[in-house]
Amino acid sequence: MNIAGTNHRAIEPISSLQHVKILDQTKLPHTVEWRVLTSIHDVAEAISVMRVRGAPLIGASAAFGLFFGVRDNASDEGLQKAYDLLFATRPTAVNLRWGLDRVRLAIEALAPEQRATAAWLEACRVSDEDVAANEALGRNGLDLLRNLTRRTDRLEIMTHCNAGWLATVDWGTALAPIYKAHDSGVAIHVWVSETRPRGQGSALTCWELKEHGVPHTLIADNNAGHLLQRGLVDACIVGADRVSSRGDVANKIGTYMKALAAKAHDVPFFVAMPFSTIDWNVEDGIKDIPIEQRDAKEVTHLAGLPVAPVGTSARNDAFDVTPSTLVTAFITERGVFTPKELSTFCPW
Amino acid sequence: MNIAGTNHRAIEPISSLQHVKILDQTKLPHTVEWRVLTSIHDVAEAISVMRVRGAPLIGASAAFGLFFGVRDNASDEGLQKAYDLLFATRPTAVNLRWGLDRVRLAIEALAPEQRATAAWLEACRVSDEDVAANEALGRNGLDLLRNLTRRTDRLEIMTHCNAGWLATVDWGTALAPIYKAHDSGVAIHVWVSETRPRGQGSALTCWELKEHGVPHTLIADNNAGHLLQRGLVDACIVGADRVSSRGDVANKIGTYMKALAAKAHDVPFFVAMPFSTIDWNVEDGIKDIPIEQRDAKEVTHLAGLPVAPVGTSARNDAFDVTPSTLVTAFITERGVFTPKELSTFCPW
Repeated sequence: MNIAGTNHRAIEPISSLQHVKILDQTKLPHTVEWRVLTSIHDVAEAISVMRVRGAPLIGASAAFGLFFGVRDNASDEGLQKAYDLLFATRPTAVNLRWGLDRVRLAIEALAPEQRATAAWLEACRVSDEDVAANEALGRNGLDLLRNLTRRTDRLEIMTHCNAGWLATVDWGTALAPIYKAHDSGVAIHVWVSETRPRGQGSALTCWELKEHGVPHTLIADNNAGHLLQRGLVDACIVGADRVSSRGDVANKIGTYMKALAAKAHDVPFFVAMPFSTIDWNVEDGIKDIPIEQRDAKEVTHLAGLPVAPVGTSARNDAFDVTPSTLVTAFITERGVFTPKELSTFCPW
Repeated sequence: MNIAGTNHRAIEPISSLQHVKILDQTKLPHTVEWRVLTSIHDVAEAISVMRVRGAPLIGASAAFGLFFGVRDNASDEGLQKAYDLLFATRPTAVNLRWGLDRVRLAIEALAPEQRATAAWLEACRVSDEDVAANEALGRNGLDLLRNLTRRTDRLEIMTHCNAGWLATVDWGTALAPIYKAHDSGVAIHVWVSETRPRGQGSALTCWELKEHGVPHTLIADNNAGHLLQRGLVDACIVGADRVSSRGDVANKIGTYMKALAAKAHDVPFFVAMPFSTIDWNVEDGIKDIPIEQRDAKEVTHLAGLPVAPVGTSARNDAFDVTPSTLVTAFITERGVFTPKELSTFCPW
């Protein structure tokens, strides 16, 4: 999507060098800084400290990471070591495993000297497919939004965290239908929750929407229930880090309470994600999706300054799990499905 | 309660001078700074910018404010002007009106030259009664906590915002039963949600609990639903800024989503407040309690720095309303009551 009118992806291959460049998301919204990654360690660090984040983008970044790994050591052992190193960077997003598996599958039967070239091509393919999937889910979501009963002449959408193009290679998941709607002339306004503790809503979603010209208003996460109660939201759309086979949704912490509030007021709650976000190996998402615990300092400090008494302990779950019963439908590249319909795609 | 081992109230009369001193809550948790208020304008400013906040403390502060007003102009007109000025400082907490009405009622039949002295005495009485009410509700809450079925050997309580002694003259509302339980040797641990946008949880509740030695853990507001879902909370206790006659609860923004999540997991949701917080004139709290809108900058900026792109617009509702159907019981100085029981106290 556009930055100051120029089209970009969140991760871009530099084919001549077989390097990649990423938009460093820890610097947004005030600084647009591209960073060139040239090694598996660069990629692992970028995922760990969240220079790149968002399930689909983590998957695409890891795919390039695995290329760097086999470029340096193309043996079976080198491949496995690179896979393990990248797999350990973040535990919740299943796209990470998916991106790694895609590249491994494409190269493991090859002779070591052929692997690096094949890995680069497959990583580029993973990226391109993510863009295509997200654009397709955006189109499917647009049809859904057009059919939403509208109380007013402007569609009011609430989202959470950042599930925009910065969370993917391009287009985004939750924001893809919003971009499609806006570009099609549908009057649309987005309530952006700031998404403490890391502020992906205020820093990333507001920035994206501003760059693309989509009207939006920032709120504290606490404000979501009130807006839903007052009838100021027509639909919620969020992304996902992992969806279980029965449709439980691991997504950024705070998603679950929004889903409960949407349910309480009969506001549809949509989850937008490519199929690569589905983990068919997990049925009960509440029991079996691992939840990443992050540094307490993300909660106790803001912009480096303590907001609580020095020494205060904090708990910082990065994700929560919304049960499928609260999900109205999944917006995917293959269509819009209820949780029950989605589960029929299970390959086993 | 204690600050570094010394007992204090959140507002203390200096009887020799007929001034009051307050703990400036905008400076916490890093600086303990007392501020002497000597005029109605000092009081109005302190309420507006939230040097004092919390419904009961606003009520007590306003009572002293009205004393300052009539000290300077004891005529009927002066009294009315002072009342109106203070009443306009914040719209949601009904204790503000209650505190003003208490003083007005005590002095309006008196000759102007007798009013200031009577107002001072009545304001002191309002303060003392608040302390007594909160201590009583703390005792009533303690009985309730003792009876809670405990899954573990430690009672896990979740609260929101600051409804501790800093929100009252002393003891607090939501925290009063917690202090009583802790002091009685009940093993208790408090989940403190930071309470964006102003951070009363991280800055004030953590500070209070630390000073009193009550174990606690800070979380982002977004984390509450996850903890409830995972069975890590035995009960929620919050305060209130205004309770309607049928038991709807206006309280700090974010309370409503916690109440929904507590309900979803059959965790009792208690509201602790003195009777002065009940507005018998309002039945439907969702329709008829005014919700204060505060400066967008509280959301777009943190510690003076922008967290969203410059120019981002924000909405900042200071309170939300939790319907009575989500309230398990009210903990008051007169006992513990279901919403239905509470409504039988209606004077008309």
